[in-house]
Amino acid sequence: MRNKIVIYDSTLRDGAQAEGISFSLDDKIKIVAALDDMGIDYIEAGNPASNPKDAAFYDYYKKNPSRKPKFAKLTAFGSTRKKGVKTGEDKNVLALLEAETDVVCIVGKCSRFHVEQVIQAECDENIQMIRETIAFFKERGRRVIFDGEHFFDGWGEDKDYAMECIAAAESADTVVLCDTNGGAFPLDIYSIVKKVSETFTTPLGIHTHNDCGMAVANSIMAVEAGAVHVQGTFIGFGERCGNACLSTIIPNLRIKKGYNCLNETAITHLTPAARYIAEIANISLDERSPYIGKSAFAHKGGMHVDGVFKCTQSFEHIDPILVGNERKHLLSEVAGRSAVLSAIQRIDPDIKRDSMETDIIVKHLKKLENDGYQFEAAESSFILGIRKILGKYKPSFELINYKAISEQPCHDGSSASAIIKIIVDGKTEITAADGKGPVNALDKALRKALEVFYPQLKNVHLTDYKVRVLDGKPETASMVRVLIESTDGKSNWTTVGVSHDIIEASWLALVDSIEFKLIKDQESGI
Amino acid sequence: MRNKIVIYDSTLRDGAQAEGISFSLDDKIKIVAALDDMGIDYIEAGNPASNPKDAAFYDYYKKNPSRKPKFAKLTAFGSTRKKGVKTGEDKNVLALLEAETDVVCIVGKCSRFHVEQVIQAECDENIQMIRETIAFFKERGRRVIFDGEHFFDGWGEDKDYAMECIAAAESADTVVLCDTNGGAFPLDIYSIVKKVSETFTTPLGIHTHNDCGMAVANSIMAVEAGAVHVQGTFIGFGERCGNACLSTIIPNLRIKKGYNCLNETAITHLTPAARYIAEIANISLDERSPYIGKSAFAHKGGMHVDGVFKCTQSFEHIDPILVGNERKHLLSEVAGRSAVLSAIQRIDPDIKRDSMETDIIVKHLKKLENDGYQFEAAESSFILGIRKILGKYKPSFELINYKAISEQPCHDGSSASAIIKIIVDGKTEITAADGKGPVNALDKALRKALEVFYPQLKNVHLTDYKVRVLDGKPETASMVRVLIESTDGKSNWTTVGVSHDIIEASWLALVDSIEFKLIKDQESGI
Repeated sequence: MRNKIVIYDSTLRDGAQAEGISFSLDDKIKIVAALDDMGIDYIEAGNPASNPKDAAFYDYYKKNPSRKPKFAKLTAFGSTRKKGVKTGEDKNVLALLEAETDVVCIVGKCSRFHVEQVIQAECDENIQMIRETIAFFKERGRRVIFDGEHFFDGWGEDKDYAMECIAAAESADTVVLCDTNGGAFPLDIYSIVKKVSETFTTPLGIHTHNDCGMAVANSIMAVEAGAVHVQGTFIGFGERCGNACLSTIIPNLRIKKGYNCLNETAITHLTPAARYIAEIANISLDERSPYIGKSAFAHKGGMHVDGVFKCTQSFEHIDPILVGNERKHLLSEVAGRSAVLSAIQRIDPDIKRDSMETDIIVKHLKKLENDGYQFEAAESSFILGIRKILGKYKPSFELINYKAISEQPCHDGSSASAIIKIIVDGKTEITAADGKGPVNALDKALRKALEVFYPQLKNVHLTDYKVRVLDGKPETASMVRVLIESTDGKSNWTTVGVSHDIIEASWLALVDSIEFKLIKDQESGI
Repeated sequence: MRNKIVIYDSTLRDGAQAEGISFSLDDKIKIVAALDDMGIDYIEAGNPASNPKDAAFYDYYKKNPSRKPKFAKLTAFGSTRKKGVKTGEDKNVLALLEAETDVVCIVGKCSRFHVEQVIQAECDENIQMIRETIAFFKERGRRVIFDGEHFFDGWGEDKDYAMECIAAAESADTVVLCDTNGGAFPLDIYSIVKKVSETFTTPLGIHTHNDCGMAVANSIMAVEAGAVHVQGTFIGFGERCGNACLSTIIPNLRIKKGYNCLNETAITHLTPAARYIAEIANISLDERSPYIGKSAFAHKGGMHVDGVFKCTQSFEHIDPILVGNERKHLLSEVAGRSAVLSAIQRIDPDIKRDSMETDIIVKHLKKLENDGYQFEAAESSFILGIRKILGKYKPSFELINYKAISEQPCHDGSSASAIIKIIVDGKTEITAADGKGPVNALDKALRKALEVFYPQLKNVHLTDYKVRVLDGKPETASMVRVLIESTDGKSNWTTVGVSHDIIEASWLALVDSIEFKLIKDQESGI
């Protein structure tokens, strides 16, 4: 194994600077625990001087020392002292000290342009600001990480000054070279880090942004050139285009390049950890994300699917199990028999490739796909379809009728209402609900009627609703495909419905969602 | 300016292999036009042998030669001949020939492992398959691009054999080195491309995938090492984690590194072009995408916002205007103006950049975009919006009320019906219609009522209807954006509506469509 690379996560600080992200104190505490479980070395959790929420966060751990991360080191973030102020009297420096973390990260300017034009200080004073602030925290027993802001841009403007700035920080435990604007290119990062590492003895780190789409590559290049510490955010969100994405960098370093970072077992939890953090941050994860996305190991092109069935490594650069993800053969017409068989065998392992049932199911799939169904994102509906063909399906209710009504003008904010009548075990239930749109009203009415018989449906709710108007007759009378993702708090499943009528298509997907949940519970003995 | 780099877009082929992507023929034709407008050199538009839809696409251009791209070269994609088959008798080769494009792209294996284990051919025969297929197309006057599949993995397994494979392709016009599995690292790509370019005289290209999050960087590294042709998809979607994203690579090469690719004016349309393609593909663009995302130049951190107010380059690696994007917090002041002004001046040429009206319109636009409106693909609604603000709009009817009803079971194939009451010039009209779904019924009822007053609406019908559930609260109660494309047989126009209620959103877009048609006729004196 190659040398140790320290992983430094800034989801809670630089990540919080992303558009649309806002963490509560509780969110932050949950994310700290998740990152700690993964074996992240440092968790940068906010700037105690910048807002009361970040200060409250550090107070929480002062008051609840037992809740502190077991492995990771909590790191408070702040700037060097301001110009013209004594270090010991600088409000921000004092706030950082009061956070009482073992580790602090100090950011200071390493670009002549920024010193002169942005903070409008003398170049020499900036050097003093860096040196004195670091000394202040070292004297008080802190481990100090220095973030050299705009180092690469500064190198381009005035290399000697950029070097003077980091020389002033040499007593820090790690000096991190930052591409703050995300404008640097891999070869430049490589050659600059290599040059710095030849003369500079303090361990070097790298901090990159994704404005040129190369934050991950730039981090890897810095490591190959001698950096031993990588900063980023776990799923890549941060200021503007985001920070270097650690959930991509970690397997790149460990699995692909053999560096010592995190440990193998932790990395097998990478995918669920990333999904959990996305859930807490309330953002939709890009499903094409390397390693952790649902599409990362999904094969669609016929040649690809065939190849993967022969040898998985033919179209996969690693085994998805190493990062807690899974291979997916998209259930499309091109995928053919092999892809379908594995789904069938999960329901009935006795059915073989050449069984009559396989034949019937493949034909059925092709017919449904011709009608506009698409199962690659809706495996639950596909599994229900297989069950129906195999006679392993008993509907949990029967619809007598529904009526969904949309009207304008609307007076109370609910522009739609729905009436529904169903039968379960011979008992009829009729009810109604209103909602923001007919699908919302129908969903509410259906659940209201069914909860009388199946109280466990109370925990089920929709997490995603997608509509696609299908090819062919592209008018309002054309076919519509609706995908619904549901959750019961423990797992998620996706179902699909297709019809000329968007309401009927939504209805079909809603019914599948509920049937799937009830079968799932039955089989796990709930 | 540095040397010319050819840009090769595979959105319609490798992009179509992405999970969840499915293009209609009409979608493909629209995307070809958009890529052509951008000045893309080659447009790879599908594999005519793989499915009837791709074959129909090439037929369309054979029958409508005037619709062929003006600048870009349409490129048909296919494999080398199969083992044990004569080139001139290979079905796929013949389908490729029948596409009648000036350029073909032939993919062939360059990895010993793939030849032996996946296609299970003799290594020597694979060499013959490459050589003969290329010769076949060269003899028939085609420009040939050879995609050397798995070249980098092949180099790792058996460098000499990988080189033999591309040597067999040296008569092609370009030989493209492919990282098909997306597992290669930037330094390896750089050194391998450099070595190949030292001995190999055919121009080299690069084709990368994003499985390690480094597809863009790997493409750039290949160019720096001597490649002169870059393959990718315009907004990055493709098999698994996607292809190299051209909307990131193009400005990286042109603006940041000074290569000759596309032209400066075309690049100022990069952002709207990417949004348009995302809209047609019906995928949500990741707003953190480099250069084209809404967050790409959005400043949030206090220090960043302050810095940008002092000097924009303090936290921006380029000026967003160069790629048709905008700085977020300055929209209402400077940047938004230029984008909007040309639309305003088409309605009232007297309005200037610093007129009060411009200010009001920019602010209004910003508010609507916050609500989920998006005008890139719906200029007609935007023009109506400007008219409303400028007092140049008189509604052609007034809605008293509508009611749209969906019901199941349905007995006559019409699962929905709608009642509508409107007033035109003091006269009330009430009518009803049924349809396949509530939007279809409402559309028919509205036209039926209005045709009493405006007979020219008889010629109008919808040609496309798209629905997008917006991010945020992903449930059936979340916001929905509807895009409607209409035609009167002479021209097409697109309108947009946004609401919690899909029926109301559709209604808003329908009303805009009709109002736009009536204003258009009035102004042209019909």
